Amino acid sequence: MFLARVTGSVVSTQKVDSMRGQKLLIVEPLRVDEKDQSSLKGTGRTFICVDTVGSGEGETVLIVQGSSARFTEETKKLPIDAAIIGIVDTVEVQGKNVFGGK
Amino acid sequence: MFLARVTGSVVSTQKVDSMRGQKLLIVEPLRVDEKDQSSLKGTGRTFICVDTVGSGEGETVLIVQGSSARFTEETKKLPIDAAIIGIVDTVEVQGKNVFGGK
Amino acid sequence: MFLARVTGSVVSTQKVDSMRGQKLLIVEPLRVDEKDQSSLKGTGRTFICVDTVGSGEGETVLIVQGSSARFTEETKKLPIDAAIIGIVDTVEVQGKNVFGGK
Amino acid sequence: MFLARVTGSVVSTQKVDSMRGQKLLIVEPLRVDEKDQSSLKGTGRTFICVDTVGSGEGETVLIVQGSSARFTEETKKLPIDAAIIGIVDTVEVQGKNVFGGK
Amino acid sequence: MFLARVTGSVVSTQKVDSMRGQKLLIVEPLRVDEKDQSSLKGTGRTFICVDTVGSGEGETVLIVQGSSARFTEETKKLPIDAAIIGIVDTVEVQGKNVFGGK
Repeated sequence: MFLARVTGSVVSTQKVDSMRGQKLLIVEPLRVDEKDQSSLKGTGRTFICVDTVGSGEGETVLIVQGSSARFTEETKKLPIDAAIIGIVDTVEVQGKNVFGGK
Repeated sequence: MFLARVTGSVVSTQKVDSMRGQKLLIVEPLRVDEKDQSSLKGTGRTFICVDTVGSGEGETVLIVQGSSARFTEETKKLPIDAAIIGIVDTVEVQGKNVFGGK
Repeated sequence: MFLARVTGSVVSTQKVDSMRGQKLLIVEPLRVDEKDQSSLKGTGRTFICVDTVGSGEGETVLIVQGSSARFTEETKKLPIDAAIIGIVDTVEVQGKNVFGGK
Repeated sequence: MFLARVTGSVVSTQKVDSMRGQKLLIVEPLRVDEKDQSSLKGTGRTFICVDTVGSGEGETVLIVQGSSARFTEETKKLPIDAAIIGIVDTVEVQGKNVFGGK
Repeated sequence: MFLARVTGSVVSTQKVDSMRGQKLLIVEPLRVDEKDQSSLKGTGRTFICVDTVGSGEGETVLIVQGSSARFTEETKKLPIDAAIIGIVDTVEVQGKNVFGGK
C-alpha cells in the first residue's frame, strides 16, 4: 500500500454500469523525504481511486492497488485497481512524528 | 486507475480468437501538472486498451489496469490488462477546474 | 497492453515442466515518439514473452501482462506473466499512419 | 519479493473494517549497491505493509507484493497488496556477506 | 517474464510457515544492451525469488512475476510474487548470439 494526499475529483457520466454512484478521487502518492526522514512529500504522480471510507480533499489516506482493491464489501464487484482503505491520523518515522499528531 | 487521452488505434488481424471484434485504442496517460496543479499534461507513455464505453480519439478517459480490467460484462473473458471504463467530463484539483467544465 | 518489437529468442532446457515446448521470445516495448507523434520508438526495455499467434523476429506485436496473460487457450495453465496476443498490421496516431499501412 | 528496512508506522482510525487491529508499517525497499555489490542501500521509496511475523523498526525484512500478499493465514481476507513475510538474518552476494552475519 | 542473473541468497529464520525450506535467491534483472544489441547487461535492480529449477549463483535465469509465480507445482501455495522457472542456455538477439552458445 502507499500513502497519498487527496487532491481532487473526477466526474464521468458515460461509464461502466457497475461504477455508477462511485466517487472518483484524485490522489498524489507521498513518500518519506529521503533527506532527513522528517516529513512526507509529494511524488508528482497522479492516481484515480474509489473511496471506501468517506475521505475528502486534503486528507492523507492509505491506498491499496491491484486485485486487492476489490477485497472490501464496497468494492468487490467493481472494475477498479486502486481504493482508499483508510484515513491516516499519524505517521511516525525513526521515532519522530512526521504527519498528524498533536 | 489513471486518466489518459485517446490518441490513436491499432489494427491486428492475426490475433487471439477471443479478441476478434475488440477495438484497440492507443492512450497516453495524463497527470496533474506538478508546477501549479492547474492542468493535465501527458506523460509520454503509451498503452493499448480495450474500450467498453464507446470512446474516441481526443477524448479523456478513465483506465483500469491489471486483472480488474476483466471485471466488466464486455471484458470478462478477454486476455487484457487495461480497459477504458469511463469518459471523463470534468476534473477538479484543489477546488479548481483543470479539465472540462463550462 | 503495450506494443513491442520481437527482437530475439531464449533457449532454456532446464525449466518448469509445464513450459516444455513453449517458444520464448524477447521483445522490446515501443512507444509513440513524444516529439511529433509520428513514429514508434523503442524503450530500451527487455521482456520475455510466450507467443500464442505465431509471430517472429522483426514483427510488431501486442503484449498482455500479468494474470491476463493466462487468459488464452494456449496459456491458461502456464506460469507466465506476459504473452503475445496479436501481430500488429497498422498503428494510427492523431489521424496519421505511424506503422504499417501502404 | 524485495528486501526492505522497517522505518516507521502509520495509525489510521477510520478504515475498512477488516483492517482493524492490523499493524501498518512503513518500509523502504533496499537494493544491492551497484558499485561494489558489498552492501545494501536504500532506494528512497516508501511502501506501507501489513506485518505477519512480528517485525519492528530497524529490522530488515522480506516483502511480498500484489495478490500474493493475501496468501498467508493472517492476511487471506485483507485488502492489502504488500506484506512482510520474513525477518532477514543474513544476505550474501557474490560469496560475501553484505548484511547480518557474525 | 524477464532475464536475470543469480547474484546471492537470503537467510530468514523467522518467517511465514509456508515458506520454511524455500531457497531465497537474489537476482539482478538483465536487459539487452541498447547500444548495439550484442550483450546482456545488469539493470542494478534487486529482486528476491523462490527457485523451482535448482539454479545457483552466477547462472542466468528466467523469472516470472506476480500471481503467475504461484502457477507451478512447487509454488502454488506460497505467498510469493517472483519465481525462477528456467535456467537460460542461450539468448539470441537480431540473429546474433548474445549469451551462452558454443
